[in-house]
Amino acid sequence: MLRSLRDKKHREELGLYAVEGEKVVAELIAAGHPFEKIYATPAWSGRRTHEIPESDMARASHFPTPSSVLAVGQIRRLELLAGELELGLTLALDGVQDPGNVGTIIRIADWFGIDRVLLSPACADLHSQKVIQASMGSFARVRILEAALGPALKGLTAPVIGCALGGRDIHALAAPKSAVIVIGSEGRGLSPEVKALLSFSVTIPRFGAAESLNAAVAAAVVCDNLRRARS
Amino acid sequence: MLRSLRDKKHREELGLYAVEGEKVVAELIAAGHPFEKIYATPAWSGRRTHEIPESDMARASHFPTPSSVLAVGQIRRLELLAGELELGLTLALDGVQDPGNVGTIIRIADWFGIDRVLLSPACADLHSQKVIQASMGSFARVRILEAALGPALKGLTAPVIGCALGGRDIHALAAPKSAVIVIGSEGRGLSPEVKALLSFSVTIPRFGAAESLNAAVAAAVVCDNLRRARS
Repeated sequence: MLRSLRDKKHREELGLYAVEGEKVVAELIAAGHPFEKIYATPAWSGRRTHEIPESDMARASHFPTPSSVLAVGQIRRLELLAGELELGLTLALDGVQDPGNVGTIIRIADWFGIDRVLLSPACADLHSQKVIQASMGSFARVRILEAALGPALKGLTAPVIGCALGGRDIHALAAPKSAVIVIGSEGRGLSPEVKALLSFSVTIPRFGAAESLNAAVAAAVVCDNLRRARS
Repeated sequence: MLRSLRDKKHREELGLYAVEGEKVVAELIAAGHPFEKIYATPAWSGRRTHEIPESDMARASHFPTPSSVLAVGQIRRLELLAGELELGLTLALDGVQDPGNVGTIIRIADWFGIDRVLLSPACADLHSQKVIQASMGSFARVRILEAALGPALKGLTAPVIGCALGGRDIHALAAPKSAVIVIGSEGRGLSPEVKALLSFSVTIPRFGAAESLNAAVAAAVVCDNLRRARS
């Protein structure tokens, strides 16, 4: 059963997800994240609910070299509240498919005190091992919502700001108190549906020749500029 | 032979490296990167020197699903010139071991027009598939050097600036024209040897609760601040 949780289909059927690895599980426990079960071998010195032999862990693990702990949690989906996106800063991900990028952006949102992260349905699955691992303990702290971006962004009073080439210089931006910042997919950028809903776009000034920046890297630079402009 | 190039030991023995994947090889060719041989199946529409059947590509490839092109280049190591680090901006990586981070930082250096990237011996190997793939075409454009950081940084007139917690606020930095910015390893930060050679450290202001930022993300935010302060 545990091993089947690597597949999104099985996670959805069971309403459960699994995360393994000493560092990430320790960070999530330290952040007070509620787990249903924490399976650990005798090598794990932290909190556990079930001790299992290494052979069982090897069967349950997604890793070639199993770690000493595997935690299982219930998938609890937070509801996007009416008017919520009008208040504070939101990072919205428009089809960011690389799980490492999604997790890293959750960690970035945590560092910069962004109020919430909104994932479109085309993003990497939030409850996959790679997303949670890249987010570190931030998975437990950041308010993460999943919703189709078109309906969610339509009619907002707060500005909807896209990250794209050819936009306004992010260095010259007078940062709004409330805004939705949209990061596009690694290959295709922003979707046409989202583009039609943007108040404007911003661009990180380029001084060299690279064609683009990685999605998580761009998100971090934009967050730093927003925080800098307001402080 | 081609398949053996996934191992650093064999790359060093042969003085050759291999990179595969349509996107990255196309970008490197477009950037004028010199390859010795470009092996491609009939599916590849770009420049090639050797056409091979899919079965040969499957044997040569490092990927479960082989791409249509695999390019082989000679390893050419650039020499760190006397006094070079006194001029312009250098990103120095102190044991950054994740190849995705090393490649992403090379791409960041290219975007922000950083003059060179300096890799310590403990960094991920520059000529590995993952580093080159994450760097995209920037592998062909950025001046990348490999050297022990202690001897390279000792006695510099240009400031040696570490990225670390508890340093000066990067938002308040009057950016120097010339500087070496040092990024530490993902797990352990800056090495004691490098710490002893720092002029000072800088920190990206935190507004939330994440313990740290990913090494490549931190490098990008610091580069953006340096460029912003000078522009």
